[in-house]
Amino acid sequence: MSQKNEFTLQQLLERVNSRRRSGDAGSDRVRTITARIVGDLFRAIDDLDVSADEFWAASDWLSRLGASGQMGLITAGLGFDRLLDIRDDEADRAAGRATGTPRAIEGPLYIAGAPLSRYEARVDEEGEQIPGEVMVMEGVVRDAQGRPVAGALVDVWHANEKGRYSHFDPDQKEFALRRRIETDAQGRYRFRSYLPPGYEIPPVGPTAELFQALGRHGNRPAHIHFLIAAPGQRVLTTQVNLPGDTFIDDDFAFATRDGLVVTLEPGTPAAGYESLGISAPFTRVQFDFTMQVARDEEESKPLARMARAVG
Amino acid sequence: MSQKNEFTLQQLLERVNSRRRSGDAGSDRVRTITARIVGDLFRAIDDLDVSADEFWAASDWLSRLGASGQMGLITAGLGFDRLLDIRDDEADRAAGRATGTPRAIEGPLYIAGAPLSRYEARVDEEGEQIPGEVMVMEGVVRDAQGRPVAGALVDVWHANEKGRYSHFDPDQKEFALRRRIETDAQGRYRFRSYLPPGYEIPPVGPTAELFQALGRHGNRPAHIHFLIAAPGQRVLTTQVNLPGDTFIDDDFAFATRDGLVVTLEPGTPAAGYESLGISAPFTRVQFDFTMQVARDEEESKPLARMARAVG
Repeated sequence: MSQKNEFTLQQLLERVNSRRRSGDAGSDRVRTITARIVGDLFRAIDDLDVSADEFWAASDWLSRLGASGQMGLITAGLGFDRLLDIRDDEADRAAGRATGTPRAIEGPLYIAGAPLSRYEARVDEEGEQIPGEVMVMEGVVRDAQGRPVAGALVDVWHANEKGRYSHFDPDQKEFALRRRIETDAQGRYRFRSYLPPGYEIPPVGPTAELFQALGRHGNRPAHIHFLIAAPGQRVLTTQVNLPGDTFIDDDFAFATRDGLVVTLEPGTPAAGYESLGISAPFTRVQFDFTMQVARDEEESKPLARMARAVG
Repeated sequence: MSQKNEFTLQQLLERVNSRRRSGDAGSDRVRTITARIVGDLFRAIDDLDVSADEFWAASDWLSRLGASGQMGLITAGLGFDRLLDIRDDEADRAAGRATGTPRAIEGPLYIAGAPLSRYEARVDEEGEQIPGEVMVMEGVVRDAQGRPVAGALVDVWHANEKGRYSHFDPDQKEFALRRRIETDAQGRYRFRSYLPPGYEIPPVGPTAELFQALGRHGNRPAHIHFLIAAPGQRVLTTQVNLPGDTFIDDDFAFATRDGLVVTLEPGTPAAGYESLGISAPFTRVQFDFTMQVARDEEESKPLARMARAVG
């Protein structure tokens, strides 16, 4: 009897990675990446003597992760999101591109299409009891030469007082704590909200399971997300961190950066901020953003990561 | 300004793989496996210069794969299921264990709890128009010494005439083409059904997307699945393949094995098969199964892979 259907691990790997239907193009890039990942996993299973039961438990976990919508928490918590930023930083340095405001991960909780206003906005919900310390954040969006960028779209989003994000929390209204602000002729933006707390991964689910098994926490320090776009400028995805948080140097997503920790100015007088409904001293945060020049149209498209990946 | 939150790929990887909450045990095994996989993926991303868009497209694909319930098709199609069999075969050889009937992958379409009968069963649906060539498969379940095993549970399942499996196909009844047969005092089993065609992955969905990009087909040759359990015997998961199929040596799941291709005996007289409703010549398939002695109770539990992984 021939033994054409009997093979070793290495022979199997060669078959998996070389099989191809005759005359079918497919994508060389997908083949290359898939072959690398499959080969690495075959060798890991062999080197670590992974049992069938362990393999199926991991496969089941990955299925449940996909179904749970928590994939973006795992990529962040295992460092992949920050890795992509490190690689973009390295590419910028290699190309001699001005770096501007440090980039920081988008995270999985961005929602496109938040309410839009010019120059200023209330990001918190007007008329409701304020669940935190009143804050106004303001500044100027600049280009690489330091010139104000008029008409830049500043997309801002942050967690509520319980550390939860609207659209991922049945208790919050649509677009709660999510706004878009178009900078004025002087490149200025400002918005009122409240100082958010940190974020913690959901206590039940595939992400929590893995992090418990790793003996790791799932906390992020208090932060505010930004996605900033303007014609001719490279989209800037970043976050600012609020100082004093326990996790400021121990972010579960490895995403905090020293250049992004803002300074709080408590007791700022209300004068000049009446249009934001402010009549008592408040905490001011001043932060200017510096964008890079876009190398091509693609870089300036005001798209979040998923839209870019699919589009 | 300190640079404690700035790091290279290698420094990030060390942080990801070493971070641990003080006083929290977790699992050293999960940490070891996770560190290996994350490190391999970091290096793959760097070596292959994977872009952020590619990474997020892959992450989105993996999420959709988990949500689609097709994870088991991908593990089979990328060779992981066969890899686990190769590793079990190697462990058997190293331990000097008798191998018995070759094992073959369970696949993702097993359903526990099929209708049970003694000695013989109709696996196809009685009274319906027969959608294929009438077949009786029969044989003896033996132990490693060749002695018949009485009371063995033979769990059998196969695809319908369209290549689809009940419970994964809204057009089929519960447990259609799935039965359990308990061997008689002479270790015998027999069942009537029809010769099934091959299987092809669903034409739309994450599995089809990847295989299109790889330029690969998603076909399996015609086969019948078995999961056989008996007290003191190691559970045997295997498949038999029908000869003459185009894909007999080109299985998308790499799961066919030479020792498992059966011989068809068309024109077998009906005499002796009346209890299966047979009154005309039919195609007979004779196949004996040889089990291994179980090393411990765990090996003899009549569990499918998911139940083993979770339990």
